Amino acid sequence: MDQPISIAVDAMGSDLGPSEVVAGVGLFLKQKGTRAKVVILGDEDVIEQALKGEKLFEHPRVSVFPTSEVIGMDEKPIQSIRQKKDASLVRAVELVKMGSCSAAVSCGNTGSLMACSTLRLRPLDGVSKPALATVWPSKDNHFVVLDAGANPQCKMENLVHYAVLGSLYAQSGLGIANPRVGLLSIGTEEGKGTDLTTHTHRALCKLGDQINYVGMVEGFQLFNNDVDVVVTDGFTGNVILKTCESLYKMMKGLMKEEIKSNPLRLLGAACLGGAFKSARKRLDPDRYGGAPMLGLRGMVIKAHGSSNRHAISNAIAIAARVVEKDFRQQAQEGVAIANQQIKSIELAVSEP
Amino acid sequence: MDQPISIAVDAMGSDLGPSEVVAGVGLFLKQKGTRAKVVILGDEDVIEQALKGEKLFEHPRVSVFPTSEVIGMDEKPIQSIRQKKDASLVRAVELVKMGSCSAAVSCGNTGSLMACSTLRLRPLDGVSKPALATVWPSKDNHFVVLDAGANPQCKMENLVHYAVLGSLYAQSGLGIANPRVGLLSIGTEEGKGTDLTTHTHRALCKLGDQINYVGMVEGFQLFNNDVDVVVTDGFTGNVILKTCESLYKMMKGLMKEEIKSNPLRLLGAACLGGAFKSARKRLDPDRYGGAPMLGLRGMVIKAHGSSNRHAISNAIAIAARVVEKDFRQQAQEGVAIANQQIKSIELAVSEP
Repeated sequence: MDQPISIAVDAMGSDLGPSEVVAGVGLFLKQKGTRAKVVILGDEDVIEQALKGEKLFEHPRVSVFPTSEVIGMDEKPIQSIRQKKDASLVRAVELVKMGSCSAAVSCGNTGSLMACSTLRLRPLDGVSKPALATVWPSKDNHFVVLDAGANPQCKMENLVHYAVLGSLYAQSGLGIANPRVGLLSIGTEEGKGTDLTTHTHRALCKLGDQINYVGMVEGFQLFNNDVDVVVTDGFTGNVILKTCESLYKMMKGLMKEEIKSNPLRLLGAACLGGAFKSARKRLDPDRYGGAPMLGLRGMVIKAHGSSNRHAISNAIAIAARVVEKDFRQQAQEGVAIANQQIKSIELAVSEP
Repeated sequence: MDQPISIAVDAMGSDLGPSEVVAGVGLFLKQKGTRAKVVILGDEDVIEQALKGEKLFEHPRVSVFPTSEVIGMDEKPIQSIRQKKDASLVRAVELVKMGSCSAAVSCGNTGSLMACSTLRLRPLDGVSKPALATVWPSKDNHFVVLDAGANPQCKMENLVHYAVLGSLYAQSGLGIANPRVGLLSIGTEEGKGTDLTTHTHRALCKLGDQINYVGMVEGFQLFNNDVDVVVTDGFTGNVILKTCESLYKMMKGLMKEEIKSNPLRLLGAACLGGAFKSARKRLDPDRYGGAPMLGLRGMVIKAHGSSNRHAISNAIAIAARVVEKDFRQQAQEGVAIANQQIKSIELAVSEP
């Protein structure tokens, strides 16, 4: 790849405003080891002003793609992308579709971004449903959970694809060597779980060296550094993602209430401030660059709505790295091999 | 109900040993508002010694049922209950089956207790699969989640039964008036989620006044005091239960590591000790008496393996209260009404 790649960055979706996204682009441009260019999409005047503020105006690796519309966080996915054809989020995906950019990064409306990516970018050969992969922080590691909600009703073949795609993403995007892939279930013996987990488990066991499949994993293993890629259907994945966020917030709120209830505790909290801060930092999901849609002919990464400049910079860097490592080609080959295995299992089952 | 009821208490399953269970019985006997008797099952010598220690020997409300076997925490459910016919856990359920006791409480092997209850006690008329209900603590309330793993592959009618049973249990067991019942899904608009959640949502909407159905709820609403009874299939319920436990432990471990890393933080933690303790207490699930199996002709409550005397006492008290409030009769009537509704929906669908 001699020609530097381009990453489309939607400036309009962040809760912190376009200037924070532009500042994130600035941080990315300072990162070493990449020559990737950035195309920033959104309100031209606002972006140019922000670029001037960051001393990035007319930077050789930055260009601006002006758009006139913005999709709000509460808009309905399908309706919003149909009605707002010049939305920054829609145009960013289109630049990937046209081949002008190799990947898109957006903090915008998750549903709209998923719908737009799925409708505009075709899936890889042999993939019927793409997945949204999320990166979760833990005490001593981080891990990928997919699908997080793109495909609530999965079939066995979908989950097998997610195992392959998640494993490749953990390697190329997150730099995890030989990632341990587990299938989320409610017991580790065969026969526990549902028909879907049983069939998928058998298929994953047959993939052999293609992935480092460690078997079924239970909920209590997730934050235990037992697994790097957790495969599950989009219903379960979405529910646990939101439930864990809710538990985390509840615990933070509870501690705040308790601390504020008396002055000695406030003093204690002041001494402890560093511990809270450091714990938060270790659990900071921003380091991992957001949630990629996997299984499409083009990389789209959904960054958190409240992403700050560091999160944006990391998301762009991961997008660039994944493209530079030729994730798409690897994914296409991986899916093809997996599909052969699935076919051979189905043949074996249908034989008399 | 003039004759006092009896609760069978398995003394052998607790991680803290039979003496802690006996001490829990002692605390229960001191509770006001109940005359319920207790039958303690397990090693006769050990229990009698513990009773003497607690000054409960030959107490008029306590009797001992000697058993010779114990099911370990790691034994396989079906195998263990088949092979150990004189296990305390098995005998406790049998006392309920025979009608000698109205409810059983055990801290033992969850899988064995679920299997034994399901196989020995018949389900209520019209119920095909019982559910394990768990009570979750939150900042400002507590809520019931069912099914937590008894029935990983649910049908619509199962979930409708769980909504009715969970609502009645929240009232009679936990004293929540007019509990808000929600169906766990991945979006609150109709059409989000799976076929199962869509069909169940429609059926629950038709139940009218029978339950206070507040619609579909998402994972982030669980700890938000939005709902008192969360209905879901046993796969999702089990996964979120274990994932949340894992996240909670990870966060505790992370804070401990951070605090121990320097002396100022240790001092801060000492000032803060009360806050941690009080937060833990507010989140203490022991107050809610464990996890009942719902939908059977007899009440069985699974208390946590590490239950202390307070948790045991609460579990016995809740079991007694549920029986005294005639949960079984209410549940039987509630299921009958729900089944009529389900039938009318099915008829409407099948009509031309």
